Amino acid sequence: MERDEVLVPADVPPGRRWDYQESYLKITRGSGRLMLFAGDQKVEHLNRDFSGPGISPEDGDPEHLFRIADRGRIGVFAAQLGLIARYGMDYPRVPYLVKLNSKTDLVQADQRDPLSRQLVEVSQVEEFAKDSGLEVLGVGYTVYLGSEYEAEMLREASQIVLQAHRRGLVAVLWIYPRGRAVRDERDPHLIAGATGVAAALGSDFVKVNYPKREGASSELIFKEAVAAAGRTKVVCAGGASRDPKSFLQELFDQIHVSGAAGNATGRNIHQKGLDEAVRICNAISAITLDDATVEEALRIFRGD
Amino acid sequence: MERDEVLVPADVPPGRRWDYQESYLKITRGSGRLMLFAGDQKVEHLNRDFSGPGISPEDGDPEHLFRIADRGRIGVFAAQLGLIARYGMDYPRVPYLVKLNSKTDLVQADQRDPLSRQLVEVSQVEEFAKDSGLEVLGVGYTVYLGSEYEAEMLREASQIVLQAHRRGLVAVLWIYPRGRAVRDERDPHLIAGATGVAAALGSDFVKVNYPKREGASSELIFKEAVAAAGRTKVVCAGGASRDPKSFLQELFDQIHVSGAAGNATGRNIHQKGLDEAVRICNAISAITLDDATVEEALRIFRGD
Amino acid sequence: MERDEVLVPADVPPGRRWDYQESYLKITRGSGRLMLFAGDQKVEHLNRDFSGPGISPEDGDPEHLFRIADRGRIGVFAAQLGLIARYGMDYPRVPYLVKLNSKTDLVQADQRDPLSRQLVEVSQVEEFAKDSGLEVLGVGYTVYLGSEYEAEMLREASQIVLQAHRRGLVAVLWIYPRGRAVRDERDPHLIAGATGVAAALGSDFVKVNYPKREGASSELIFKEAVAAAGRTKVVCAGGASRDPKSFLQELFDQIHVSGAAGNATGRNIHQKGLDEAVRICNAISAITLDDATVEEALRIFRGD
Amino acid sequence: MERDEVLVPADVPPGRRWDYQESYLKITRGSGRLMLFAGDQKVEHLNRDFSGPGISPEDGDPEHLFRIADRGRIGVFAAQLGLIARYGMDYPRVPYLVKLNSKTDLVQADQRDPLSRQLVEVSQVEEFAKDSGLEVLGVGYTVYLGSEYEAEMLREASQIVLQAHRRGLVAVLWIYPRGRAVRDERDPHLIAGATGVAAALGSDFVKVNYPKREGASSELIFKEAVAAAGRTKVVCAGGASRDPKSFLQELFDQIHVSGAAGNATGRNIHQKGLDEAVRICNAISAITLDDATVEEALRIFRGD
Amino acid sequence: MERDEVLVPADVPPGRRWDYQESYLKITRGSGRLMLFAGDQKVEHLNRDFSGPGISPEDGDPEHLFRIADRGRIGVFAAQLGLIARYGMDYPRVPYLVKLNSKTDLVQADQRDPLSRQLVEVSQVEEFAKDSGLEVLGVGYTVYLGSEYEAEMLREASQIVLQAHRRGLVAVLWIYPRGRAVRDERDPHLIAGATGVAAALGSDFVKVNYPKREGASSELIFKEAVAAAGRTKVVCAGGASRDPKSFLQELFDQIHVSGAAGNATGRNIHQKGLDEAVRICNAISAITLDDATVEEALRIFRGD
Repeated sequence: MERDEVLVPADVPPGRRWDYQESYLKITRGSGRLMLFAGDQKVEHLNRDFSGPGISPEDGDPEHLFRIADRGRIGVFAAQLGLIARYGMDYPRVPYLVKLNSKTDLVQADQRDPLSRQLVEVSQVEEFAKDSGLEVLGVGYTVYLGSEYEAEMLREASQIVLQAHRRGLVAVLWIYPRGRAVRDERDPHLIAGATGVAAALGSDFVKVNYPKREGASSELIFKEAVAAAGRTKVVCAGGASRDPKSFLQELFDQIHVSGAAGNATGRNIHQKGLDEAVRICNAISAITLDDATVEEALRIFRGD
Repeated sequence: MERDEVLVPADVPPGRRWDYQESYLKITRGSGRLMLFAGDQKVEHLNRDFSGPGISPEDGDPEHLFRIADRGRIGVFAAQLGLIARYGMDYPRVPYLVKLNSKTDLVQADQRDPLSRQLVEVSQVEEFAKDSGLEVLGVGYTVYLGSEYEAEMLREASQIVLQAHRRGLVAVLWIYPRGRAVRDERDPHLIAGATGVAAALGSDFVKVNYPKREGASSELIFKEAVAAAGRTKVVCAGGASRDPKSFLQELFDQIHVSGAAGNATGRNIHQKGLDEAVRICNAISAITLDDATVEEALRIFRGD
Repeated sequence: MERDEVLVPADVPPGRRWDYQESYLKITRGSGRLMLFAGDQKVEHLNRDFSGPGISPEDGDPEHLFRIADRGRIGVFAAQLGLIARYGMDYPRVPYLVKLNSKTDLVQADQRDPLSRQLVEVSQVEEFAKDSGLEVLGVGYTVYLGSEYEAEMLREASQIVLQAHRRGLVAVLWIYPRGRAVRDERDPHLIAGATGVAAALGSDFVKVNYPKREGASSELIFKEAVAAAGRTKVVCAGGASRDPKSFLQELFDQIHVSGAAGNATGRNIHQKGLDEAVRICNAISAITLDDATVEEALRIFRGD
Repeated sequence: MERDEVLVPADVPPGRRWDYQESYLKITRGSGRLMLFAGDQKVEHLNRDFSGPGISPEDGDPEHLFRIADRGRIGVFAAQLGLIARYGMDYPRVPYLVKLNSKTDLVQADQRDPLSRQLVEVSQVEEFAKDSGLEVLGVGYTVYLGSEYEAEMLREASQIVLQAHRRGLVAVLWIYPRGRAVRDERDPHLIAGATGVAAALGSDFVKVNYPKREGASSELIFKEAVAAAGRTKVVCAGGASRDPKSFLQELFDQIHVSGAAGNATGRNIHQKGLDEAVRICNAISAITLDDATVEEALRIFRGD
Repeated sequence: MERDEVLVPADVPPGRRWDYQESYLKITRGSGRLMLFAGDQKVEHLNRDFSGPGISPEDGDPEHLFRIADRGRIGVFAAQLGLIARYGMDYPRVPYLVKLNSKTDLVQADQRDPLSRQLVEVSQVEEFAKDSGLEVLGVGYTVYLGSEYEAEMLREASQIVLQAHRRGLVAVLWIYPRGRAVRDERDPHLIAGATGVAAALGSDFVKVNYPKREGASSELIFKEAVAAAGRTKVVCAGGASRDPKSFLQELFDQIHVSGAAGNATGRNIHQKGLDEAVRICNAISAITLDDATVEEALRIFRGD
């Protein structure tokens, strides 16, 4: 992908078009697709994702995430600004995306609908990038569609996309239907609604859960969501850890059958020890960025 | 309609009177009536309006809306700023109206009264128009009258009208009575209340649902609402898709019997394939802008 | 009343004392009493006050209010800024008071306590007056005392009085006890509490409902409220339409027995046809401003 | 007390130390103790404190408060800014304290926990003092500890103390435990908690209710609260009207047994006719400011 | 620890790195570990911690805290700004940390989930330090994880850490899981979640409760939390008063077994008389700062 192939949204001011293209090319490694390594779950999932059966002991230390991001081939590493601020100076080559909101999952939706508020302003991210010299390519934000607090999150998301673009940053929305009003979070029509909302808010990328319906193949029913997003690119959450082959196959199908533009993966990477984690990163990137086959990717993962 | 026939509200500052007249003449195509093509439903209705039985597969892609707006004869195309930002650069001739708030309909009124908050400031719209070079003629906002959150929406609506006028933009309010306290959303007296509220808030146009009462003809009972609005012009929501003839007849009656000043139509346009959608746009515009008869409009729709 | 008889509150800054005196003299037509024509009910009462049995069809058009305000003898015409902005340019001689908040009465107090928020800032009113050249003499705001949302309204009311005085404008508070905690909205002791609150907030005028108690004459029990208000002047709401004689007699008693300083009348004026409305205005003003007797006022109303 | 004996809190900036000392010396009339005449109850108690059996008819007029404050010997007169603004110009010698929040007691704690919000900013008080030339020595604010809305009031109280000190003004907090969670508002341990909170917030004075416990003498159990307040001085609310002798004896005990630093009295003063009210003021001041005995104070009250 | 061993977070701007290192070295007395003397409980626990059976009468006076902080060997003394402002001028050598939020525990979690809001801005702390000349090394804030109001506290905490770092101050978060959704506040996995949240927010230190689990030794299960915090240092709350030996042993184990970086102790210090309080301070500091054994620390405590 060449610089002039990057479609710059119209809310990027003329003086920031070059910056936006630069951010976009770097975050997609010139491929137009996104390999996002998600390191923002220490708030949402507390320590469940980082310590326990089947999880490498290395993952108990937050620096594990940075080591992977540094050595693995990724598009961008997503984490809260605070975490980046504590390790970034030692990992200056990592491309960062600042996740702007987070909540714990202690309060479940049957007690109260989810609300996750913006923790840090986009202007503070810009200031942080300038002061620290770190390469911040984008910002991220989660919207819980169908929550009784949806209005506040839609407002913050809109502002974040606009503020990001005004600074030449890429905006990624995590959009999950959730709350008392949502019966089936994986309903394909609803997931397509979620990607359509991302389009309406002008996001560059939207991360959704992979749809599921009894008797349907997810990669086919996912096409509706990819279409509904229009020029907003769709990536799928990686979900809980499972065997690399089925994981990579699913990613391949999302890209080559559904038309998705990448992936956002956390647990399937960082719950492994460093070497294995780096290899799965590289395998994911091979599919996402290089159009590798599942077999090729598996070879990379196995270190053949 | 000549420039000096445009009645400029007194909250438009002297230095912006020319801009306001310009916006008003363009948005009404010199007719004083409004043909608004509504492309803002990807949030409120998620993907239900864009994919499913009876809907053209072309409608699954958001760009479909822009193609119609570009080729059809319309007064203005209403959508969220984010969506306009992703396609506007390729559709620079389309006249835009930025819809400033939106919510999903996942949370129904029996769970919680509706609240739709402003997503983007009017000053940001102005900045966007300047930076992008796109022609933004107005802004829109929805108020749910009778919601327990009405106070917040009345406040935002008032500010939006005032801010729009101070920048020479046209303001359109969508006003729908909704919430636990509202028994009959289509009650003609209540709809007249809604248009009266729009008058009190100083809106240029107000979009309401067409009133209904057992045994009464809607075009007659709608007159109360048109009168109550005074100098605020009333347009009707197009509603769900149905057969073009009855649709156009209803529009004709709204204008020529009730005294309405146009229409705001979404699904009856974009759920059709591009050619048919363009033709229905042109048919609607013939009635709205040129005082065409229903027969003439149908001929345009049929492409005779 | 001479200029130097106008008691200027101490929160009017020195440079605005002359403006305040001017506003006060004009709004009371030099009498120290207020004849306020209330045209702000299109939000609170929707279209019920303007269309229906016993209401002149002329009242269905908002311009009716302006025609009355223009031709009748009044102290000030109260309406929302938006409405004034749509008609003011054609009624430049009308003295205006901008009502700063409004809500619909769709949500009743048994569902949720009333909240009416400020729609427009006092600074915006000043800007509007300057830009439009219209004569804006004051601002108004409603407080629902005893509502669970009272705190927010007391805050806004305090700020509005202060902001108005800092700009040389007259402040009028509408204070109504209302909400689940209020058993008898017309209790004379409670109404006196309401006028005392207005005094504590520093309002120039306070509009309350006329107290009622079984077996007591309202004009006598109303004295407590007039006393409790101190230097804040008390005016009564006109209430629903009824026969002019009893209406004028009540107004006379409020002023000459209770010590009230005028009236705030809406429906008893605008629900009549233009000529009759103008005549009742003049009759009310004769009592309020000229100390006319009820008989003299009735002669004016009858056009003798 | 000499100027250099005034302990200036460390949040008073160097350039305002002199002003603070001046305010402190004046408000305590050089005694280090506070005689606060409370005239802020027209909101909280509506008209109940000002009209009814056992209350002088003079008290029905708000000016009564100013006449007392003008003629009686007091440290400071506390009222809302709005009320001061209406009478201050005629009572320029009165030392004022602006009470910054107030609520009505219509909504009782069993319906909803109390919330009283700041009505006026400290910066506006300063501006008011400058413009009006009135002597404003301090500001006051009520916190309902244990209310579900405590967080908002603690925040406002903290800011008010800080803002006051930055302007050389004295800060007085009214702290009352109240709400569903509070079983015994007069519990001595809880009252000591309240004065400790005032210390933590940095207030100069704190007004609390006098503790009560079956079988304990209040003046002894009150010592805990005086100790807990540390350098924040404690004054007691005067409460409902009762016979002067027991009232003065209690005040004497609070000061000389418990170690309180004065009193805040409203109803026991203003519910009397002017002459008697002035005499009780002087009697209270004799005890508070001059270390008079109860007998001496009673003689002053009786006008011997 | 040398200056260049202080790891400066990347959100400290270049011009403030030296200040941050200075604050960090001072607050840890060059040891990298924190001995925080907690004097902020007058709000949360009202007067329960300061007066009652087993509590030295000296503790009834807030100045007791300052006397201890002045004479004992501590890293930093934490209290609300208001309290520091009243005593700081007499205790200028004490190193201060301003606790930025506080609430009472009157409303229990079964009535309503906890919310503690920021009382004072970080910029006001900086201004205070400058004006007063006092040495303020850091700021503190409590987050109740799992509260329904968590979103507001996470937002304030994020901003506080960022604002503190931008001014070269050290940030300490108190993080306690609490609310209806939290079944076991001492669950080790949950405590590790809490320290992980502190890491994500970029805090320098996090204070948590010591975990407990039937049949497990706390010092071992606490290791998970220390690991999860990464570069954020973990300190334990001291809790209720108990015998010095077991207290010091626990502290020793936390540091030498679990890997904690210090302690935050209040009641175990200030509930003692001044001399004893100073000696326990010094004993705690010996373990925390000098790697003393429990025996050595006990000797210091006993004054041998």
